Amino acid sequence: MSSSRGFASDNSATVHPAVLGAIARVNVGHTFGYGHDDFTRRVEARFAQHFGEGARVFFVFNGTAANVLSLRAVCRPWEAAICASTAHVNVDECGAPEAIAGVKLLSVETEHGKLTSQLAETVISRVGDEHAVQPRLITISQCTELGTVYTRAEVLALAEFAHSHEMLLHVDGARLSNAAVALDLPLWEITSDVGVDLLSFGGTKNGLLGAEAVVFLNPNLVAGFEYLRKQTLQLASKMRFLAAQFDALLTDDLWRRCASQANEMAATLAKAVRGLPGLTITRPVQTNAVFATLPRETTDMLQREFPFYVWDERTGEVRWMCSWDTTEDDVESFVSAIDGALG
Amino acid sequence: MSSSRGFASDNSATVHPAVLGAIARVNVGHTFGYGHDDFTRRVEARFAQHFGEGARVFFVFNGTAANVLSLRAVCRPWEAAICASTAHVNVDECGAPEAIAGVKLLSVETEHGKLTSQLAETVISRVGDEHAVQPRLITISQCTELGTVYTRAEVLALAEFAHSHEMLLHVDGARLSNAAVALDLPLWEITSDVGVDLLSFGGTKNGLLGAEAVVFLNPNLVAGFEYLRKQTLQLASKMRFLAAQFDALLTDDLWRRCASQANEMAATLAKAVRGLPGLTITRPVQTNAVFATLPRETTDMLQREFPFYVWDERTGEVRWMCSWDTTEDDVESFVSAIDGALG
Amino acid sequence: MSSSRGFASDNSATVHPAVLGAIARVNVGHTFGYGHDDFTRRVEARFAQHFGEGARVFFVFNGTAANVLSLRAVCRPWEAAICASTAHVNVDECGAPEAIAGVKLLSVETEHGKLTSQLAETVISRVGDEHAVQPRLITISQCTELGTVYTRAEVLALAEFAHSHEMLLHVDGARLSNAAVALDLPLWEITSDVGVDLLSFGGTKNGLLGAEAVVFLNPNLVAGFEYLRKQTLQLASKMRFLAAQFDALLTDDLWRRCASQANEMAATLAKAVRGLPGLTITRPVQTNAVFATLPRETTDMLQREFPFYVWDERTGEVRWMCSWDTTEDDVESFVSAIDGALG
Amino acid sequence: MSSSRGFASDNSATVHPAVLGAIARVNVGHTFGYGHDDFTRRVEARFAQHFGEGARVFFVFNGTAANVLSLRAVCRPWEAAICASTAHVNVDECGAPEAIAGVKLLSVETEHGKLTSQLAETVISRVGDEHAVQPRLITISQCTELGTVYTRAEVLALAEFAHSHEMLLHVDGARLSNAAVALDLPLWEITSDVGVDLLSFGGTKNGLLGAEAVVFLNPNLVAGFEYLRKQTLQLASKMRFLAAQFDALLTDDLWRRCASQANEMAATLAKAVRGLPGLTITRPVQTNAVFATLPRETTDMLQREFPFYVWDERTGEVRWMCSWDTTEDDVESFVSAIDGALG
Repeated sequence: MSSSRGFASDNSATVHPAVLGAIARVNVGHTFGYGHDDFTRRVEARFAQHFGEGARVFFVFNGTAANVLSLRAVCRPWEAAICASTAHVNVDECGAPEAIAGVKLLSVETEHGKLTSQLAETVISRVGDEHAVQPRLITISQCTELGTVYTRAEVLALAEFAHSHEMLLHVDGARLSNAAVALDLPLWEITSDVGVDLLSFGGTKNGLLGAEAVVFLNPNLVAGFEYLRKQTLQLASKMRFLAAQFDALLTDDLWRRCASQANEMAATLAKAVRGLPGLTITRPVQTNAVFATLPRETTDMLQREFPFYVWDERTGEVRWMCSWDTTEDDVESFVSAIDGALG
Repeated sequence: MSSSRGFASDNSATVHPAVLGAIARVNVGHTFGYGHDDFTRRVEARFAQHFGEGARVFFVFNGTAANVLSLRAVCRPWEAAICASTAHVNVDECGAPEAIAGVKLLSVETEHGKLTSQLAETVISRVGDEHAVQPRLITISQCTELGTVYTRAEVLALAEFAHSHEMLLHVDGARLSNAAVALDLPLWEITSDVGVDLLSFGGTKNGLLGAEAVVFLNPNLVAGFEYLRKQTLQLASKMRFLAAQFDALLTDDLWRRCASQANEMAATLAKAVRGLPGLTITRPVQTNAVFATLPRETTDMLQREFPFYVWDERTGEVRWMCSWDTTEDDVESFVSAIDGALG
Repeated sequence: MSSSRGFASDNSATVHPAVLGAIARVNVGHTFGYGHDDFTRRVEARFAQHFGEGARVFFVFNGTAANVLSLRAVCRPWEAAICASTAHVNVDECGAPEAIAGVKLLSVETEHGKLTSQLAETVISRVGDEHAVQPRLITISQCTELGTVYTRAEVLALAEFAHSHEMLLHVDGARLSNAAVALDLPLWEITSDVGVDLLSFGGTKNGLLGAEAVVFLNPNLVAGFEYLRKQTLQLASKMRFLAAQFDALLTDDLWRRCASQANEMAATLAKAVRGLPGLTITRPVQTNAVFATLPRETTDMLQREFPFYVWDERTGEVRWMCSWDTTEDDVESFVSAIDGALG
Repeated sequence: MSSSRGFASDNSATVHPAVLGAIARVNVGHTFGYGHDDFTRRVEARFAQHFGEGARVFFVFNGTAANVLSLRAVCRPWEAAICASTAHVNVDECGAPEAIAGVKLLSVETEHGKLTSQLAETVISRVGDEHAVQPRLITISQCTELGTVYTRAEVLALAEFAHSHEMLLHVDGARLSNAAVALDLPLWEITSDVGVDLLSFGGTKNGLLGAEAVVFLNPNLVAGFEYLRKQTLQLASKMRFLAAQFDALLTDDLWRRCASQANEMAATLAKAVRGLPGLTITRPVQTNAVFATLPRETTDMLQREFPFYVWDERTGEVRWMCSWDTTEDDVESFVSAIDGALG
């Protein structure tokens, strides 16, 4: 392992020491597997503090699973989910929503990855027509894949729109903590409090080893989900070690501290490179990602030293992602390299 | 966490300290996610030492996933898998083989969970008849869910039988290490060397935190599996932490040491209770499980203190499972309690 | 086309002239497709006369589809269906229940294809255990694939058993008319009146060109089925021509007349060959099938002239199927050939 | 049945008398079911005359099934199909491609429903990236849902483009006959001769009672399809009656005569209404459909007498469909009504 840190993704980062500590602490004695142990139940119960009474949580292995299980839990075979065309479910899950959940996605073009009621409405049609899938769910990413954030009011508006069409609102919160930090709001204020029905709550991109959660905020949707989790290959054998990760994340606001650092580093990076000749920041920098365009040869040169992804091969737009463990030094070195490469 | 240890399951056990150590050691710096890092590649390459040149390994999250992905990788929609009626795929995966892989299982009754060519042949029929599923795979558990072990010759015979019918042989090796220890053979001698085509290789029940592997021994079967793993919700984001677990397991024969301890403790337990009045050991004790019948009230009394499962509610047969961390003291205490409860 | 008639299957038979007549009669002018026409609605409504008020009918193309759609309509992904091991869903649908409906079948060995509560109970276990599929449906074939018939009381007992376990009862009635004739009861007396929840009602094997029906007798189950039929590839474009076939079948008791003829011819055949040296009738002859064992060379000799199937390659058991268009002459010729071949 | 004819759809039409005649002619004697009869085999063989040597045909029940089976036959689970956003597979199959075939569709906006290589290329990206579905198939509709036709050269260009990307070309030919007539070309010249790999060949919208075909032009793709057809609920029990329909369609160019009449009537209609005040023909009229916009109240008034569909509720665009049995009188009456309503 080298000790270098790049800007490829927040899942390139390390595990927070507090998380490894929590894992080690529960590594004592035998417990029943599959979450049927008191420790896991206590951690599950802690979610109510952050997501409101009635929140029911199920730990799973990764973010794709959290999303696909959410879709599978609430959509009957002929029901569809509305999403932004840039959504992770649409472009980064290798067709799992369709192949595993059997759910058709109705995707719409958006600005900077943010869905609106007006946009969602464009794909609601032929309600009651047996030849057409019937929209059942709106799924949004908070923050989006482009680093942008829905305000509390925007989420509320989408939830109300969804409910007025007998639909549900799902939030892909792989980076929900980053959004909450950006909005300076507790997690429940942007989820249960504004009508979100179910949630993929991410941990892996915010300092965990590998754990995500499906959180039912609408308790009417939960029946049978324990079978669905098992059948869809997401029931952890030694569950306490997933629970321990979330225990750490929810202790002393670790989720907030990790996400704050990541967001701040992105802000620092953006501030430093904005205005450099030949470089254009292409998206509002609201969380832990900076998107930019710059000359292709500059990109090539930088990638030799700093891992990061070209987001759009056609336009050359790049993504620079900061993590809970990104340091000011990391940013400074990178800025300096960018500056040099552009110069 | 209490420090008590019971006999419920080998997944009730702790993580081996060497495994946590390996995780901590790779928790340095950034790497690309999803296994696209040098460390993961090196660990993958280590499997060749244990399973033969040409072995191709893919880490996944749990044993159900390893099995279901194996089926999904090699069976077209109309192809079926032959298994023992007691197989994990048949009774403990909540219908995932059918619902997620779309594969029908042709299950046959066996003695102590062991399939034979003769038994498998009873469900091979109507080959070429479009109304019937076409057997494509024989899947066996090594060791079986009843703790029994296939000899090297028995696996070879099944592989030859499978191949002679244009079928493949899959091994559910959630406890393959326990079988190898029981047979005193290296892993490759009971897999690649005897014609096994693909393998679910277990780690979680043998001291890991949570990691399993799909191992292709027949390299012709591997094409496209990286997509299948991702789509079937099994691609780990921070893969290095799965790889590190297997790195530990394959270092200094940890797999063998852990499995040996578990097997020995089961042997010790069986030896101590065999012959106790009212207690009958119901299966050959070959690995880390002891199956027995005893009076229902004795079972009830014991379960108040020692966690274990009633395996068959109808007959009252119980299963006592030993783990890598089961100690002689644990066994002695349990034997003493059994003795007292029966007395 | 030759004009010969064999004993291969009741789907080898012709279409009853009244059915072709009904098709021709509706072949006038334009109607809306997909069943949204008055004629189709009237025919659908006629089912209430035969299956009770509240019966809701959906026409589909074939019997496999009727069964698979029935399973898919009422089973959530982790729910299972209990059936006889000889059931059409289990052995003659190429894995469609598993691959298309995603439903695991729990099959049990029976005598002559008839399930009982006692037998069904043997596969009900681990209720509430997330690792195991949860039985939701009992499906029986009336008459069975072996030509045997459930009495009205037997169906009632199975329905009560199912309901007492929060399960449903489905009847695969591909040959329900033959059973009703055998019992001398109207269709509703052996379905809605005795608690059957949903039904695959067959027509193709009883003189239709190609039309089957899913009949919901329990109206609580019907929500959304129009989408499911469409999505599962069973929505007929020119629906009036399916409706017309059922219109003919339900007119002047055509269903009863056709099934009576088939049953009678089987009875005649059985009576004539019973006791012939070397020939054993192996199943109760209650509907339109005769099962028998006879010397393999006799079978070979007979098959050169008369098409029929060897039912079980292992035992040499043969099936002789009579149809609505089987004549006394057909039976006489066949008996005479059997007699000669055995002699 | 009324004798009126509207402009709702070509599946509102009657069955051509020659088709009913062909059905009646084969309604003699017994044959083996499921297509294992000589007559069906002869009709299947006739397809080679129209689609080239090597064409392998499988009859199915409806157009959705033909398309979904085509996708399911050639796409592995992680492979995707590229289509026009207006394609039947995308908007009129209730999510069956996703739910039944498990295939994600990559849809692109087109002009008048026609895909081009340039458009298809916009959704080909991330080849080899395990997080993204991999395009395997381009599917076009010939003629399109908007009545437009691909020239022979355009199909050839798409096939070459597909093959150069290791993809296949599928044609949804529910109305292929109408396209062939429009182009004045034989069927093979716009399919096998220009590199089409597989085809859904429609009959129901061109005078059949209910029969479609999956035609493999690329013989390498056919292995196992007999199982897939059965499992996907599309194996007709009394197959000879599907075969007879196609026998009629391919006899004396019935397919051409029927499609010609439909196309001509649409041309007549379009010619008569083009230029009427307030009415705009919105699509090139190349086959049997006329699309137009006209005042909403005019549409409402016309629909009271003449069945037809509003194609787009948002714009008020209507579709007028002609059929094999549409007469000049029908068109005249309709034109007169339009004229009056607009006036």
